Amino acid sequence: MEIDFKNIKVIGFDADDTLWVNETYFREAEKEFAKLLSKYETPNKIDQELFKKEIGNLPLYGYGVKAFVLSMVESALELSNHGVSTKTIEAILNIGKDMLNKPVDLLEGVEMVLKTLSKKYRLILATKGDLLDQERKLEKSGLNDYFHHIEVLSDKKEANYSKLLKHLEIKPSEFLMVGNSLKSDVLPLVNIGAHAIHVPFHTTWAHEQVTEDEKNGKAYKTLNALTDILNLLN
Amino acid sequence: MEIDFKNIKVIGFDADDTLWVNETYFREAEKEFAKLLSKYETPNKIDQELFKKEIGNLPLYGYGVKAFVLSMVESALELSNHGVSTKTIEAILNIGKDMLNKPVDLLEGVEMVLKTLSKKYRLILATKGDLLDQERKLEKSGLNDYFHHIEVLSDKKEANYSKLLKHLEIKPSEFLMVGNSLKSDVLPLVNIGAHAIHVPFHTTWAHEQVTEDEKNGKAYKTLNALTDILNLLN
Repeated sequence: MEIDFKNIKVIGFDADDTLWVNETYFREAEKEFAKLLSKYETPNKIDQELFKKEIGNLPLYGYGVKAFVLSMVESALELSNHGVSTKTIEAILNIGKDMLNKPVDLLEGVEMVLKTLSKKYRLILATKGDLLDQERKLEKSGLNDYFHHIEVLSDKKEANYSKLLKHLEIKPSEFLMVGNSLKSDVLPLVNIGAHAIHVPFHTTWAHEQVTEDEKNGKAYKTLNALTDILNLLN
Repeated sequence: MEIDFKNIKVIGFDADDTLWVNETYFREAEKEFAKLLSKYETPNKIDQELFKKEIGNLPLYGYGVKAFVLSMVESALELSNHGVSTKTIEAILNIGKDMLNKPVDLLEGVEMVLKTLSKKYRLILATKGDLLDQERKLEKSGLNDYFHHIEVLSDKKEANYSKLLKHLEIKPSEFLMVGNSLKSDVLPLVNIGAHAIHVPFHTTWAHEQVTEDEKNGKAYKTLNALTDILNLLN
C-alpha cells in the first residue's frame, strides 16, 4: 500500500534505535553483567536467565533502564544462590547509572530528515522507555525543537496507539509511525488502519522479534535508511 | 482570586494522595527498610540517609517506586558498609514489588467529584510517577472513563506545565490544576497564570514541603475536602 502523504497530519517517531543508538548499550550492559557473575554460570545461561527475569517483571516494572537494573539485581541473587557479593550489587547499580549517563549517538541523517519533515508535518516522539530518560536523551540530542511533544506509552500495542490517536484527535489514516521495531512501531499501527514505516536497526532485542506469520501480508514499507523517507514525500 | 469556572476548559488532577492513598505506602516502606537495617544505624539516621540518596538520585532516576527501590538498595550498601546480606537486598526488592501491587484506596468523594466535573470539563490526570504504575492504578481505581487521558510529567515545575499547556493548546487561564502538593500541583501553576486548588493530604513527603515565603501572596484556593470543589461550581 502506498502511503498518501497528503492525508498524513502527524508523524510519530520511535526514539531508541530509530533516532539514536540504544540497544547496543543494553547488549554491552548484559556482557558486563555476565562477566560479573562468570564464576556462577556460563555467559549463555546468564543471558537467558536475565531475559526470563526481564520478561517476568515486565508487567510490574515496564520498560527502561531502571526496570532492567532491578531485574539484573534479582537475577544476580538467584544465579549466585544468594552468594553474590555486595560489591557486585554495587557494580550492577553502576552499570545502570552509566547507561543513563551515556551520550546520545544520533543515527545517520536523523537531523536532516526531522528538519525537512517538521516543516510540513506535526512530529511527535512516541516511545516506551522512562519519560525522564527519554526527555534527557531528547535534550542531549538537540532535536527537541523538531517535535511538538513526547508521548510515552507504557506499551506499544494496538490499544495504546488507539488511545494515542484519540488523544491526538486524528483518524488512524492521518497518522504515520516510523520505527525500528516491527512488533512495536509497525504491526500494531497497520492493524488499526494507520500507516507505518519500518527502518531496521542492526540489533533487535529478543522480546521485539516477530514471526514470519505475524508480518505476512501486512501493509507497511521497509526502508534501508531513515533518509529514504524523503524520497517518498514528493 | 476567585476562579471563574466559565473560562476553564481542562481540569488536571494530581493522582497520588489527591485521588488515592500513596504517601502512606512510602512511609510504611521506609519503616520496613529501617527495620531491615536496624543493626547498622538508628531509624532516624537510616531515614535521613535514604532521603539524601533519593534526592541525590532524582536527576538521574526521577520519581516513582522503581527509583525508590534503587535508592534503598544503594543506601543499604552504604549504611552497612557493604555488610548487608543478600537476603536483605532481596527483601528490599520485595518491598518495591509489594508497593507496585498495592490495591488502590480511593480518597473520600473522589468518584462523585470526577463524575460531576467530567460532564462539564475535560479532565486529565497529571502525575509524575511511573507511567505504567499510574496506568495500573487508574485501571484498578475504576476512574478511567472520567479522564480524557493521562499526562506523565518528568517533574512538575513551571516549564513542565507550560509545555503541557502548549501541548493541550489552551491558555493558562483555561487550566485548573487540583492536587495535594503546594510545591508540585499549585505554586508552579499560579506562577504561570493558571488556576490551582490545593487539597492537602495528611502526609507530605519532605521533598514536597514549601516555605511560608514561597506561598506568601500566591492566589490559590485551599479546600478541606475534594468534594468542596463542587460548591465552587454552583
